[in-house]
Amino acid sequence: MQVTVLGAGSWGTTVASLTTLRNPTLLWARDAAVADEVNRDHTNKSYLPGFDLPDRLRATADLEEAVTHAELLIVGVPTRGFRGVLEQAKPHVHPWIPIISLSKGFESGSLLRMTEVIGQVLPGRPAVALSGPNLAREIMSGQAAASVVATEDLSVAAAIQNALARGVFRLYTNHDVIGAEVGGALKNVIALATGMAQGLGVGDNTRATVMARGLAEITRLGVAMGGEPSTFAGLAGLGDLVATCISPFSRNRTVGEELGKGRPLDEILASMNMVAEGVKTASTAIDLAARYDIEMPIARAIQQVVDGKATPMDAYRGLMHRRPGHENDPE
Amino acid sequence: MQVTVLGAGSWGTTVASLTTLRNPTLLWARDAAVADEVNRDHTNKSYLPGFDLPDRLRATADLEEAVTHAELLIVGVPTRGFRGVLEQAKPHVHPWIPIISLSKGFESGSLLRMTEVIGQVLPGRPAVALSGPNLAREIMSGQAAASVVATEDLSVAAAIQNALARGVFRLYTNHDVIGAEVGGALKNVIALATGMAQGLGVGDNTRATVMARGLAEITRLGVAMGGEPSTFAGLAGLGDLVATCISPFSRNRTVGEELGKGRPLDEILASMNMVAEGVKTASTAIDLAARYDIEMPIARAIQQVVDGKATPMDAYRGLMHRRPGHENDPE
Repeated sequence: MQVTVLGAGSWGTTVASLTTLRNPTLLWARDAAVADEVNRDHTNKSYLPGFDLPDRLRATADLEEAVTHAELLIVGVPTRGFRGVLEQAKPHVHPWIPIISLSKGFESGSLLRMTEVIGQVLPGRPAVALSGPNLAREIMSGQAAASVVATEDLSVAAAIQNALARGVFRLYTNHDVIGAEVGGALKNVIALATGMAQGLGVGDNTRATVMARGLAEITRLGVAMGGEPSTFAGLAGLGDLVATCISPFSRNRTVGEELGKGRPLDEILASMNMVAEGVKTASTAIDLAARYDIEMPIARAIQQVVDGKATPMDAYRGLMHRRPGHENDPE
Repeated sequence: MQVTVLGAGSWGTTVASLTTLRNPTLLWARDAAVADEVNRDHTNKSYLPGFDLPDRLRATADLEEAVTHAELLIVGVPTRGFRGVLEQAKPHVHPWIPIISLSKGFESGSLLRMTEVIGQVLPGRPAVALSGPNLAREIMSGQAAASVVATEDLSVAAAIQNALARGVFRLYTNHDVIGAEVGGALKNVIALATGMAQGLGVGDNTRATVMARGLAEITRLGVAMGGEPSTFAGLAGLGDLVATCISPFSRNRTVGEELGKGRPLDEILASMNMVAEGVKTASTAIDLAARYDIEMPIARAIQQVVDGKATPMDAYRGLMHRRPGHENDPE
């Protein structure tokens, strides 16, 4: 099966490195220099410094070439470029092939999930979300990881599982696409919050509390959007949340930590060459919370910090000042 | 309100140090030397080295004296001594006062939860579980923490919340006692598993996966026992699990890590002066899983290591070899 991965960031390149072990894989990079580097040196130093890529992985910067022969299309471009790349690719994409999204976030303005964008741009093809606790460098180092292939038709999910799973990369199936995508996107906001807690020097009790209360508010919103509670308690919810919140390599956690230490947001973002989706997702979460009439005190506090309306210390004090009630209540 | 805390281990002493700030509190220590040390030096060096206790906290080794005037009785002795201490205290315990369990585990043989033991020995009194992400040293250092007061009657829970909550110690109420106790007990088995993973040198993806799959199997068992899924996703489930699995100070995680490094269990346990409840809880979990006909692959693997029937490496290999199915399935 010919696999194409669009987007040569750290995660797109990692997934392409996995799929190429059993299926011929073509990686599309927006930047021709990155494609050349992959073909010539078998590295992608900007996004996966220190790692050798499989020799047989091929790359191109030509979108038509990348897409024309694809029998399975995997899309790993950041949410802000997602629709644009699909629109450009559209004339060359086979009918009825599954389109897998690796991107964790919502479209600005429309607040659509990435599989909804796929459904609009490339209708008639199964839209799939791949999500879970997947730190790219660990998988590149050969460490084991598990993830969820979420799509409505479980027989499609099982076929994709067959094509993509490796011994060290375990794939579970799930029919709950909404839950998998909402969990994957919103966990970045909670990673900002726990990172901020670390930057402020609080302990593991507080970090664990923010993760638990954070997952509770993500779950409330996700269930209102049509997701299932068990998905949020699974790999694409809790699993991804915990990996992102504990890993020293998570971008969103790192941005939060630097904010907690008092560094200004624009300075932090300027020093990173990767996208920290959580910064944008914080305000999307608040818009979605308003649409579905859900209380999200942690997301609200993070949005205020991101918008420069509160310091991380204010945000933490605010969260601590609410009087707790029943655990199932929002605050 | 006169509060008595039975058990001068690290958590019992920490809770007594919190309650004494607003309510006269008497701490019962089995060992007279510990009671003397608390009264004379305001320290408990065996269990909370490096911390000063509040001057007004009083201690005694006389159980009758400890219990006679108690208007609220908090029990923080390890599960293996829990029933015995209650039996001894019974003739002196006021009727209808709430009894709060701090202990996370099941009674050997009977497989009873601690509030069930309270119900048998001291019937007619509200039985309460206090559980959550509570690392004793962090709370002693003044770090914020949150916990759940779980008891069937929410008005009793609210009254206890009023009596015990401090600014930095947030208490939520919950009516689901079963969920709170099962989550608190079984998380220790998962802490052994993630500690073992750390000892074997695996990455954060795998640790997060073990936490997510571990919480899933705890939830399956807990729901079969009558608990509610949302409790397992809350502070006494996920919150406590994450704190225990990420903290360098967690005993169960530490035991797991040493096992992962290849140290024999009896040597590890002999070097600790505290009880690692998870070691005993692993086989209790398997007994409960059999009784309720639930698959618990992680607990089973941990039990085999604890029983010396498998090495930590065998256990991890075994978990990795199963072919994953739908995420909601047990394996």
